[in-house]
Amino acid sequence: MKITLAQLSAMVGGSLEGPPEKEVSGLKGIEEAGPQDVAFLANPRYAKALPSCRAGVVLVSRDQKTPEGLAVIRVDDPYLAYAKALTAATQKPYQPGGVHPRAHVDESAGLGEGVTVHALAYVGPRARLGDRVVLHPGAHVGEGAEVGDDSVLHANVTLYHGCKIGKRCIIHGGSVIGADGYGFVPEGEGYFKIPQIGIVQIDDDVEIGALCTVDRAATGRTWIKSGVKTDNMVHVAHNCVIGENTLLVAQVGISGSTKVGRHVILGGQVGVAGHIEIGDNVQAAGGTGIIKSVPAGDIIGGVPAMPHKLWLRTSGLVKRLPELLERLRSLEKRLGRDSLEVKDK
Amino acid sequence: MKITLAQLSAMVGGSLEGPPEKEVSGLKGIEEAGPQDVAFLANPRYAKALPSCRAGVVLVSRDQKTPEGLAVIRVDDPYLAYAKALTAATQKPYQPGGVHPRAHVDESAGLGEGVTVHALAYVGPRARLGDRVVLHPGAHVGEGAEVGDDSVLHANVTLYHGCKIGKRCIIHGGSVIGADGYGFVPEGEGYFKIPQIGIVQIDDDVEIGALCTVDRAATGRTWIKSGVKTDNMVHVAHNCVIGENTLLVAQVGISGSTKVGRHVILGGQVGVAGHIEIGDNVQAAGGTGIIKSVPAGDIIGGVPAMPHKLWLRTSGLVKRLPELLERLRSLEKRLGRDSLEVKDK
Amino acid sequence: MKITLAQLSAMVGGSLEGPPEKEVSGLKGIEEAGPQDVAFLANPRYAKALPSCRAGVVLVSRDQKTPEGLAVIRVDDPYLAYAKALTAATQKPYQPGGVHPRAHVDESAGLGEGVTVHALAYVGPRARLGDRVVLHPGAHVGEGAEVGDDSVLHANVTLYHGCKIGKRCIIHGGSVIGADGYGFVPEGEGYFKIPQIGIVQIDDDVEIGALCTVDRAATGRTWIKSGVKTDNMVHVAHNCVIGENTLLVAQVGISGSTKVGRHVILGGQVGVAGHIEIGDNVQAAGGTGIIKSVPAGDIIGGVPAMPHKLWLRTSGLVKRLPELLERLRSLEKRLGRDSLEVKDK
Repeated sequence: MKITLAQLSAMVGGSLEGPPEKEVSGLKGIEEAGPQDVAFLANPRYAKALPSCRAGVVLVSRDQKTPEGLAVIRVDDPYLAYAKALTAATQKPYQPGGVHPRAHVDESAGLGEGVTVHALAYVGPRARLGDRVVLHPGAHVGEGAEVGDDSVLHANVTLYHGCKIGKRCIIHGGSVIGADGYGFVPEGEGYFKIPQIGIVQIDDDVEIGALCTVDRAATGRTWIKSGVKTDNMVHVAHNCVIGENTLLVAQVGISGSTKVGRHVILGGQVGVAGHIEIGDNVQAAGGTGIIKSVPAGDIIGGVPAMPHKLWLRTSGLVKRLPELLERLRSLEKRLGRDSLEVKDK
Repeated sequence: MKITLAQLSAMVGGSLEGPPEKEVSGLKGIEEAGPQDVAFLANPRYAKALPSCRAGVVLVSRDQKTPEGLAVIRVDDPYLAYAKALTAATQKPYQPGGVHPRAHVDESAGLGEGVTVHALAYVGPRARLGDRVVLHPGAHVGEGAEVGDDSVLHANVTLYHGCKIGKRCIIHGGSVIGADGYGFVPEGEGYFKIPQIGIVQIDDDVEIGALCTVDRAATGRTWIKSGVKTDNMVHVAHNCVIGENTLLVAQVGISGSTKVGRHVILGGQVGVAGHIEIGDNVQAAGGTGIIKSVPAGDIIGGVPAMPHKLWLRTSGLVKRLPELLERLRSLEKRLGRDSLEVKDK
Repeated sequence: MKITLAQLSAMVGGSLEGPPEKEVSGLKGIEEAGPQDVAFLANPRYAKALPSCRAGVVLVSRDQKTPEGLAVIRVDDPYLAYAKALTAATQKPYQPGGVHPRAHVDESAGLGEGVTVHALAYVGPRARLGDRVVLHPGAHVGEGAEVGDDSVLHANVTLYHGCKIGKRCIIHGGSVIGADGYGFVPEGEGYFKIPQIGIVQIDDDVEIGALCTVDRAATGRTWIKSGVKTDNMVHVAHNCVIGENTLLVAQVGISGSTKVGRHVILGGQVGVAGHIEIGDNVQAAGGTGIIKSVPAGDIIGGVPAMPHKLWLRTSGLVKRLPELLERLRSLEKRLGRDSLEVKDK
């Protein structure tokens, strides 16, 4: 990147206070940045670093007090502006690579314009790739599966037959989309497999982390709506619906047929029971065990889930249980123990 | 599927009450089904939908009251009958695909009749595939490994050298069977790796979900017995034995050398310590932490595991700890606090 | 293996009491071993099996009492000596296999001497493999990535662009090294992706289990230091640092920017919050939820983490909560219940 402050300001929708023709070429932390760098101040705690800041320009909030002589660009959200500037600085323009001779693309597959299918990637019969789709080595697009424009499947991703991925999605390495849901019915001593004849539908602008699983529906679809972002090792079972712009942090597991609303955030290692509903904007702390439906807007924690504040309180009290027992014993002693004493091993 | 009621009834071992020559061609829910569809009534709660049901035929239990004029097939287990009918309706007869020229099969490997080895699958030296085995793209059968008749390895499955999979097994995408068990012995500041020279043996009719790991034994075998079904992201460590027809739900982890009995059900995210035994028919709620052996038939929950009913009780009481403390304080106040007061921060 | 007792004794750094020219050829348990086998006694509990032991030689500790006539080799650590003997007995000398014609190696990649690149492995542009590196089928070395001398990537491992693996490392099947860290900034209703432009650096002598993820840094590096050993399904988020010789047991998840010290042991399914520090030699029981920094040397358990001894105490008391409530009620009854009674549903 080599960009003038005027160009940078226009790119991030900010208002510039400083020399418009001055050029910057890197991004650094506010304390490390030099005259050629862009820095940003998102957390007011770091404002005290401004007077000694040597950055070429600093992205700051609209109302941030700044020292005279320091070039700044005022924006609504300095962290977002930083992310956009960093993206512009580091993202190479897309260059279609075509279909590598060592990829395997079935002759009945349909390919959009400008795709990149790397060596050792696989596209099955009647599968369809949109424009500018990128398949890394070992990526697998099963029979009749579809990948929308500008989506990327990283190495060793498995997309089962008939499943659909929208536009501008990123699926990270090793994830498996569309394996059979977990459904069996007892028969004698064993189990009979219930056919899983539905699909997975992933809408636009979804990012799935590495080594995640989204299982195909028994019938109908398992549905990841637009804007969902999952971390690594997230498991979504058959027939779940995950609402728009919901975040699922690493190692979350969601059981079958559960509906999760929009803008939900489930922290790491959260477990969710099947056939329940989690309302919009719910937030669950890491490790929460959600065994029944949660109303919209609740903030929860603990196993089983309870209001987050109560969880903080009770988890503190659990640590004090030995003391509480001692106090109970002391009271009993003063009153003379009754017949329950025998239980106090 | 286009099938007469007489044929359907014979297929599911039922007794037909209705016109034997009538044809049906689809399967639907009891409320959506039309004259050409099969429906089923497994849960008596939905019996109230029968009078208005327009299905071509309904699979019902032997003693279900049904409205006159509605064609029904009486069976022992309507849900099982439905699963079987659905299977018959949706399962295409197997067509061997042969070895794709872009698969890699070592010349010393042994292949049964009617196998399908897709492009980009790998079969190593001295490996053996039974009849009608299917290897999807990216599936890997290591040196000397064996896969029994009619088994399927989905895309990007890794089967390490020397490991054995039985007949009619399904291994879903990305699972890793036979990686080294986790064994190290301290040496100075670091660790010395203990060779893992055993294998994994998976018996017949096992289904392993996507992205599961079953580690090879240090010596001898890690053994998954017949009929076991695992969900996704299940981890079974070295030298474990999992008994017949046991179910392991998503994200379960079982530590080394533990023996799990038959017909056990471990819920999602259950963790099991090493070197213990879980008896037959044990059921553990999701998230249970099992740190010592569990007698056959126990139903458990909580961390660490306790009887399930006690867990329900205690998890309710944990939420009430602030109230219990308040009541304790109140008693102390009325009696005059003793020297423990200082601890009550 | 066919080895004299003198050779074996030299190999494990022991002192032999027995016939130096006698040959042994296998390794067995102390009770099963015959005259041609090596056995070992690591746990003094099994010393009672010595008098009837028929092994050709037994590896014992320096001060172990042993029956007259039984050949023994005295060593500092019999288990370590056994592991070394087993390694010598079972490890075949490395034979370079070259680059298989069905592997894909970009012409700009740099390959050391004696590498083995199996069929269907992939080496991207400007990637570098050290001497004697082994890539199994489906292993993926991304653009500009580096793998040090004598390291092994098992089948279907994904190493993203620019990431670095040291010498003598083992990465087990399906693991994903270098996927994007989980970083987004809110923008309107959705999220804007923060570019993840750092790398993963894995130092020497690291073993990563199957289906693990180590995410690339936002900027800089995610750093796994030398001698670290992870079990399967371990997740290390972006910008973490894992200290030398630390052990991460199966299904551990570590959130972003957390620093873990040396010689730490995190048990199975431990979850760790982001932006905290875990000191050297910390040990956490399986399932621990670590939400704040932990001083060096602490032994912890529970959710949230507490001292391990306290956790044992409190988890016992949680089971007794119904009894504690009963005793509290009994006291209240004897004193006459006050206004809190109404809460006791």
